[in-house]
Amino acid sequence: MSQEQPNPPSLPPTEAIQTDPDLRATTENWFEYPIIAYPHQTDYAGIVWHGCYLTWLEEARIECLRSLGIEYADLVNLGCELPVIELALRYHRSLRMGMRAVVKTRMSDLQGVRINWEYKIVSPDGKETYVTASVTLVGIDREKGKIYRELPPAVKNALVKLRI
Amino acid sequence: MSQEQPNPPSLPPTEAIQTDPDLRATTENWFEYPIIAYPHQTDYAGIVWHGCYLTWLEEARIECLRSLGIEYADLVNLGCELPVIELALRYHRSLRMGMRAVVKTRMSDLQGVRINWEYKIVSPDGKETYVTASVTLVGIDREKGKIYRELPPAVKNALVKLRI
Amino acid sequence: MSQEQPNPPSLPPTEAIQTDPDLRATTENWFEYPIIAYPHQTDYAGIVWHGCYLTWLEEARIECLRSLGIEYADLVNLGCELPVIELALRYHRSLRMGMRAVVKTRMSDLQGVRINWEYKIVSPDGKETYVTASVTLVGIDREKGKIYRELPPAVKNALVKLRI
Amino acid sequence: MSQEQPNPPSLPPTEAIQTDPDLRATTENWFEYPIIAYPHQTDYAGIVWHGCYLTWLEEARIECLRSLGIEYADLVNLGCELPVIELALRYHRSLRMGMRAVVKTRMSDLQGVRINWEYKIVSPDGKETYVTASVTLVGIDREKGKIYRELPPAVKNALVKLRI
Repeated sequence: MSQEQPNPPSLPPTEAIQTDPDLRATTENWFEYPIIAYPHQTDYAGIVWHGCYLTWLEEARIECLRSLGIEYADLVNLGCELPVIELALRYHRSLRMGMRAVVKTRMSDLQGVRINWEYKIVSPDGKETYVTASVTLVGIDREKGKIYRELPPAVKNALVKLRI
Repeated sequence: MSQEQPNPPSLPPTEAIQTDPDLRATTENWFEYPIIAYPHQTDYAGIVWHGCYLTWLEEARIECLRSLGIEYADLVNLGCELPVIELALRYHRSLRMGMRAVVKTRMSDLQGVRINWEYKIVSPDGKETYVTASVTLVGIDREKGKIYRELPPAVKNALVKLRI
Repeated sequence: MSQEQPNPPSLPPTEAIQTDPDLRATTENWFEYPIIAYPHQTDYAGIVWHGCYLTWLEEARIECLRSLGIEYADLVNLGCELPVIELALRYHRSLRMGMRAVVKTRMSDLQGVRINWEYKIVSPDGKETYVTASVTLVGIDREKGKIYRELPPAVKNALVKLRI
Repeated sequence: MSQEQPNPPSLPPTEAIQTDPDLRATTENWFEYPIIAYPHQTDYAGIVWHGCYLTWLEEARIECLRSLGIEYADLVNLGCELPVIELALRYHRSLRMGMRAVVKTRMSDLQGVRINWEYKIVSPDGKETYVTASVTLVGIDREKGKIYRELPPAVKNALVKLRI
């Protein structure tokens, strides 16, 4: 690494993004999605621009659903959307161009039509944590333009399998 | 609006993103940055993709700093970066292609080298709220690759003026 | 500018992007859209990532249409889309974070349902050229999912006014 | 596919993007990079936004270089950048959310410090063509901020292997 590009610092300790305390003890059931940082994701500082992580969170979530038999595009064509209604990210360390990492995700909670996902973006050996995040989706009926009272059974049944 | 694109629903009430309770009473000192939703910001649902809001939060923050006499590019050339280390967004209503809105932002708190910003994205008449958000930056010394113990005086003095 | 960020070089002479020779003589009728390079648009080299220019080309085109009384979102709601079917860009000089520029655009040609736009991204004083580009749109009937035989009269009449 | 989302039309015949006539006869030596269209890449029309293809072209090019033993991030750290100085795309058919495709790329020509790449984005079975493109890179010496007179030997030797 050249002198003008020092190793990105570890960020100072702060209060963690709130997660259900029961989750913290669990280390199982993570879905893993490998990523590489390409030039288009970097910014002037030579690191991944903070907003680019949202594309990876989405991709990991969709691949996790696919691993359960839910094709998100099919769900939308059937009239059900799952938009993001809340998200929180904490950036612990930077990813530089060319670095590989793994997005680990799992559904942490299913509260009615709200679906909570938890994320960790870590180094391939799991020793470094780059980002931790939580994302909340809600089920929407495309035709009515309204939030569902209950998720469609096919969606709910698939998601229940993910419950940790 | 055609039948297959119903008005985006108002999202269900949830706990607000935590902000300093003292801030809630204050309605002054917002910096305003007008935006328009272009096609490249929309997704398959005809609304702005949730990650695109981060570009607007950044643009509003940089314009707010410029209004105080801080050119962010100059700051970086002088060796000081202000990366995002934490953010949280809540999506209340959707923005559709062609809609105009206003990003309202203010520095809500300055804790040592941590700079907290608060945001509301609202309709031009202020009656609808689309997104609320908070973003935390930290001051980094580019040369050392380390977090500052103290912000450079020029930055600190400009930011203190923003304190609400 | 610090040593590790040398001035971006002027790129070597190459064959220009082909444009109608009749256009070259014309210097009038450009629509102007001012831009600023924000951090999210930069890459590891400290310059605007080459793909980000496409968002500016789109924004300038939509604002040019708006100046003629065509709201693109309304057009889509009425069933007419104008997707890009061809584009070509040449990068002459780089834009760095914080720099201002002007996207100049004009409709260079209307060939049936094909609408050709020409672009120059230049410095505010017009002395430096960063990018030259051409973009071709085609009119599509959303309902039929087919290219129009003829553009809807309202669109065609508005565009004819733009003809140089 | 629902009624409001008709199959995207095949675009009308136009003159192809110019490529070296010698290349047209060759069907070998393509590097293949598989892609999937995620929600963040779609626009209001339910198809991939035209600018998103540039991220895939870049990713495929970098993976092609990696397959030759060139890590682009290492090259940059050694002082050599390969920015895009020209590109041209033609959009033949649309990709919809959830669709898979393959980006096929190959270095079509090496002219001094100019490196020309050719692309086809096709369906997994190769029967449908979505996009054809050409991209020209140039070698830049980061320290001097100037275009190289000659590519560094390590780069040139690796690229020569790609020559078709």
